Amino acid sequence: MTQIISGREISDEIRSELKDQVAALKAEHGVTPGLATVLVGAEPASQMYVGMKNKAAHAMGIHSDQITLEADTSEDELLGVVEGLNSNPEIHGILVQLPLPDHIDEGKVLEAIDPLKDVDGFHPMSVGRLATGSGDFFAPCTPAGVVEMLVRSGNDPSGKHVVIVGRSNIVGKPAAALLMRKAPGGNATVTVAHSRTADLAAVTRSADILVVAMGRPEMITGDMVSEGTVVIDVGTNRVDDDTREKGYRVCGDVLFDEVKEKAAAISPVPGGVGPMTITMLLANTVKSASLRAGASV
Amino acid sequence: MTQIISGREISDEIRSELKDQVAALKAEHGVTPGLATVLVGAEPASQMYVGMKNKAAHAMGIHSDQITLEADTSEDELLGVVEGLNSNPEIHGILVQLPLPDHIDEGKVLEAIDPLKDVDGFHPMSVGRLATGSGDFFAPCTPAGVVEMLVRSGNDPSGKHVVIVGRSNIVGKPAAALLMRKAPGGNATVTVAHSRTADLAAVTRSADILVVAMGRPEMITGDMVSEGTVVIDVGTNRVDDDTREKGYRVCGDVLFDEVKEKAAAISPVPGGVGPMTITMLLANTVKSASLRAGASV
Repeated sequence: MTQIISGREISDEIRSELKDQVAALKAEHGVTPGLATVLVGAEPASQMYVGMKNKAAHAMGIHSDQITLEADTSEDELLGVVEGLNSNPEIHGILVQLPLPDHIDEGKVLEAIDPLKDVDGFHPMSVGRLATGSGDFFAPCTPAGVVEMLVRSGNDPSGKHVVIVGRSNIVGKPAAALLMRKAPGGNATVTVAHSRTADLAAVTRSADILVVAMGRPEMITGDMVSEGTVVIDVGTNRVDDDTREKGYRVCGDVLFDEVKEKAAAISPVPGGVGPMTITMLLANTVKSASLRAGASV
Repeated sequence: MTQIISGREISDEIRSELKDQVAALKAEHGVTPGLATVLVGAEPASQMYVGMKNKAAHAMGIHSDQITLEADTSEDELLGVVEGLNSNPEIHGILVQLPLPDHIDEGKVLEAIDPLKDVDGFHPMSVGRLATGSGDFFAPCTPAGVVEMLVRSGNDPSGKHVVIVGRSNIVGKPAAALLMRKAPGGNATVTVAHSRTADLAAVTRSADILVVAMGRPEMITGDMVSEGTVVIDVGTNRVDDDTREKGYRVCGDVLFDEVKEKAAAISPVPGGVGPMTITMLLANTVKSASLRAGASV
């Protein structure tokens, strides 16, 4: 029987732990973790996503400020908003929803966030500290979610060969950093493969654990996976499907039905990594508030 | 015939190019690249190393300030010296020689260096920017030297499977970041193996290019390498040897005589990566001065 790694269940488990931590922070330190989300413009997908984040925060007892700015907000105005949140003692986590409008330099805005409130983990200081293991940092939410799924499903990566397919700054590269570090959830032998990899199937077949984050619908087929592999599918793709009422279906980067036959364990899409991302954002916010309060994390 | 990748020759080639760049910077922009080295205490190995760096800088036409502080210098005093160098317009590169005395927080000192003068590449901002490919940064000197050796010897890593043995912050991890990025000298499929890797020989045998940085004398033996592999040996170890006048010999992490028989190309120790490290420090200093002068890099 193939183990199905349910991100939904693991996410619920973590959220229940976070709820207790938030209650303890309030009771013992008088601190309510605070998250600020900043949305520029009214792009429907971003609006929906920010809304989900705020709703989840409230359910956890986390204070959440949703700041919505006009699409024509200037870079300077946005930087001013970020500065204000940096110095606001009630805010422990700042999330600027990407993408930003074209007239705003994304890198500049991300670097303006206080690294100690960078719960998205995209500030170069956060990336650097994750890589070197020095100082306090927040790991990017999606790869942090992947590690939690592995560990909590009984598939600890330590000593295993993990192959990551994809080298994005959001998933592939930080996942490699997390999985190779000398720390719980790490200590794996890590290979990063990508669009320029010569014989991808040979590489994916050498994996004990396969993490796929390429954004290509169902690219990993059964013949690309060895018997007994643990597979985490980070992809979320919409593909046309006339048999569905909506005209599309959502699928991952892994051809689930084929790969499931060979995998020892596999995460589905939807219901896999997806629910973990927001949960890890909340976990980072609670961690930030705990660090500020001097509570143990 | 196995190709011997001589770090000495490649280093001479780069230094000659740098000399021309320094002359052009002076002639066209009136700028002399400036490097400041800071040494705390009189540890003989560090003294020798800093001396070599300054000598090499002078030979290139680079201005070099050598600052030597007493071993009992306080952290605050050292931070003050770094601040002064940060604001000194004649200094484009700052190198604080490690290790520092125990009473000084190394991380704190490294983070005090202006990232735009961090020619050693150890500031978390530099590490983060190297990982994400955003903004200007300086790559750590030893892994940058490894990439130059590969490219200039005709062994471009693009599309190849590079196995790195060792996950240090100084070599293994930044080498992985350099080799996997979407840029010249990158685009490799990268595996990072280390002390916790289950079957190291199986991993090293899967390499097209093998980079070894474990600090374990001659640990990579002939049976661990496939025919036709390109091998870069980053190790520099002293082992006891009664047959030598000094009582020791210097060797790498690779058992040279055995591995040479199977490798397509191999770097020796000494005369391999060693000479490249100082050269890349000087290259970073010239790059920093060029960026400041608005010259093309």
